[in-house]
Amino acid sequence: MEVTRALARFIVGHHGADIPETVRREAARSFLNWVGCAVGGSRHETVERSLAALGEFSGPRVATVLGRGERLDVMLAALMNGITSHTFDFDDTHLKTVIHPSGPVASAILALAERSPVSGADFLHAFILGVEAECRIGNAVYPSHYDVGWHITGTAGVFGAAAAAGRLLGLTEQQMTWALGIAATQSSGLREMFGTMTKPFHPGNAARNGLLAAILAKANFTSSNQGIEAPRGFAHVLASERDLSQITDRLGETWEIALNTYKPFACGIVIHPAIDGCIQLRNEHQLKAGDITTISLGVHPLVLELTGRKTPGVGLEGKFSVYHSVAAAIIHGAAGEAQYSDAVVRDPAVIALRDRVTATVKPGVREDQVHVSIKLKDGRTLDKFIEHAVGSVDRPMTDAQLEEKFSGLASGILSVGETDRLIGLCRDIGKLKDAAEVARASVPAATLNRVDRRLG
Amino acid sequence: MEVTRALARFIVGHHGADIPETVRREAARSFLNWVGCAVGGSRHETVERSLAALGEFSGPRVATVLGRGERLDVMLAALMNGITSHTFDFDDTHLKTVIHPSGPVASAILALAERSPVSGADFLHAFILGVEAECRIGNAVYPSHYDVGWHITGTAGVFGAAAAAGRLLGLTEQQMTWALGIAATQSSGLREMFGTMTKPFHPGNAARNGLLAAILAKANFTSSNQGIEAPRGFAHVLASERDLSQITDRLGETWEIALNTYKPFACGIVIHPAIDGCIQLRNEHQLKAGDITTISLGVHPLVLELTGRKTPGVGLEGKFSVYHSVAAAIIHGAAGEAQYSDAVVRDPAVIALRDRVTATVKPGVREDQVHVSIKLKDGRTLDKFIEHAVGSVDRPMTDAQLEEKFSGLASGILSVGETDRLIGLCRDIGKLKDAAEVARASVPAATLNRVDRRLG
Repeated sequence: MEVTRALARFIVGHHGADIPETVRREAARSFLNWVGCAVGGSRHETVERSLAALGEFSGPRVATVLGRGERLDVMLAALMNGITSHTFDFDDTHLKTVIHPSGPVASAILALAERSPVSGADFLHAFILGVEAECRIGNAVYPSHYDVGWHITGTAGVFGAAAAAGRLLGLTEQQMTWALGIAATQSSGLREMFGTMTKPFHPGNAARNGLLAAILAKANFTSSNQGIEAPRGFAHVLASERDLSQITDRLGETWEIALNTYKPFACGIVIHPAIDGCIQLRNEHQLKAGDITTISLGVHPLVLELTGRKTPGVGLEGKFSVYHSVAAAIIHGAAGEAQYSDAVVRDPAVIALRDRVTATVKPGVREDQVHVSIKLKDGRTLDKFIEHAVGSVDRPMTDAQLEEKFSGLASGILSVGETDRLIGLCRDIGKLKDAAEVARASVPAATLNRVDRRLG
Repeated sequence: MEVTRALARFIVGHHGADIPETVRREAARSFLNWVGCAVGGSRHETVERSLAALGEFSGPRVATVLGRGERLDVMLAALMNGITSHTFDFDDTHLKTVIHPSGPVASAILALAERSPVSGADFLHAFILGVEAECRIGNAVYPSHYDVGWHITGTAGVFGAAAAAGRLLGLTEQQMTWALGIAATQSSGLREMFGTMTKPFHPGNAARNGLLAAILAKANFTSSNQGIEAPRGFAHVLASERDLSQITDRLGETWEIALNTYKPFACGIVIHPAIDGCIQLRNEHQLKAGDITTISLGVHPLVLELTGRKTPGVGLEGKFSVYHSVAAAIIHGAAGEAQYSDAVVRDPAVIALRDRVTATVKPGVREDQVHVSIKLKDGRTLDKFIEHAVGSVDRPMTDAQLEEKFSGLASGILSVGETDRLIGLCRDIGKLKDAAEVARASVPAATLNRVDRRLG
């Protein structure tokens, strides 16, 4: 079975009209969430340092760093947007493989769209096909590939970027086969890098290198025709077990992007049920911190194992504290990136409430469940059982929740008007005449002026 | 044991004066051989296609594509020179690991030297340190890493490029530790790509990505401090067995570049003894093809297994034919890239002699040995036993042979005067005020004019 060639044939030959509307809608939701994460992460130190390092090497500055004024050549812009969009670890998740699928694919083709104009419909189609290639390749090698230490968003992402970019570049079947081969030989990214700036580098690097693969293949730069399935190809060298049928079975009948999920809260998924339950009780009862005597959580064991930090000192530590997370969520009504700032973690009001939170393991509670019990000063006790946390496959974020998350991420970077316009463009990506409009609309007017002066 | 940090500390802290003169001399020989291969490969279709694909994305065009007029930004120039230098598979070999050590390292730092001027002495020192890092990391994971399917020149090369470039960029110990981590997470390259244009892409990509790692680290872009040795780091994820002591034991006491070897002939090393023996007999007896009745070779079994093709039809097939190789060697007195052109493989005179060559397995003959027996029309029989083929560790190519090889590679690209000047600059690299002079001197005057017009 020629896996690489079969996948290439599918990618170059697929008709956009054959994509179900529900799939197209989920793709637009994924894209919206991705743009929000990229804009939100665009001022982080990780981004400042990489831009400072790499800016001087840029070729023709045709592509936008989302949320900023700088423009770079398409490969460096793809790298930077991949970095920004994963910096908060707040982007989408394909739960079957823990791939963050949008970063590598969208970063590559949005930059490319600024060089070679493309309709929103074709853009969205290429995006869906790229995610399909990436997640199916991930399915074929998960979990042995991930378990040994590969960061699958990087290793599978490079295929997705190559596939989507190659589709937009109009590669032939042979060229697409080569592009997947050139992607295979660049597949990389180690989980050892988690916790450092090099983690978000992975989706960016996958975008950059997948784009390079497609561009080389377009010039008939040859590679193996069996880059994925050969004995010395990707699936054998980078995984101890594999099921290649996951790549080719029912191609065009099922769509991996339909399984995509989005994080409502900017922390590890294990404490999402507790945050969800507390925010629901807060909103139902207009709770204020001063009303509350104690908050008791009945949780899955992993919650204490991974997020049992009682007295976090800085923002990042707050992400590993279920106590801080629910206290901040009660006070702010949210658990976005803002609730994990140093300032919020050190806020005396948050600390005072945090110290009144207890969490104990409750047998039978699943990972996406929680029992919340809040005792009030007026003597009442409020209880809430969360069956599935918001953001899980069983209880996906609504469009309104996704847009609210977007607004939170863009806050302080874009004006409210700019944010609303950008949300609208993402929502309607499939109808735009020029997909690159999204990139241009992500740049705040104020920054644009400042940066234009600097680049002179 | 902190392997990554120990290696980083060594690279940033080492004093050039502590390098033995013999090591420095071998490094200059390696560099000479590498420049010759890069110039020689510079007009190949592999290079034309990659340049056509990537040229438009170049940033500031400060670095030279060796042997050509085009200039590119340093990262793309590093990529291109890595490609050109490995296109003929004629570059140097560290036999313990089958790494081709110069490509990733020299490509990265020669391009960098055109942006940030550096003395030849510092350049050569960084080159030696880069090769040391690359080959020691290779030693630590060879052979399990290679056997599973990794192209070790790519996977280890990215460390060498990062180390050498980081040294020239003046990284601190912490920054160098990060640079090695960013290199680790980009380590890639599959043996499946052998026989396609993507094979020479590997050292180029290692050069490009190692340079990127050093440049990011210089801006304090963080990565793991244990990128090599951690349970989810390079040596565990990319190899089933490893010996990390190979990276740190006797650092600064032994030098891997002292073990470097160079191919005298542009084909698989297994037929080098036969070519060597035939050329020696030809030169000792002024043999012409017309003098010869038969050529009988007593060989190691691998010769027939790998190069037993009796009637090659095109140049590349000639490399897999011991019959063609010795026939061409007798007629031309050489087995360089020119002897593996389509024209020479199809030359009736070569074919006529080729058909009079027999090769049989002779028990006891080692891989680097051969028995040659040539019967002449005048009734004489000439015999030659090769104990160690030229180019092996036991019988290294002389300086004169390396320079002759260089001249053959540069022929048709540089004038004789230009070739001699470039050889002199490579030989004296350690004494140059500005190492980048080598890059500039590799550009033929004629091409320079033509290309300057084209780039406008």
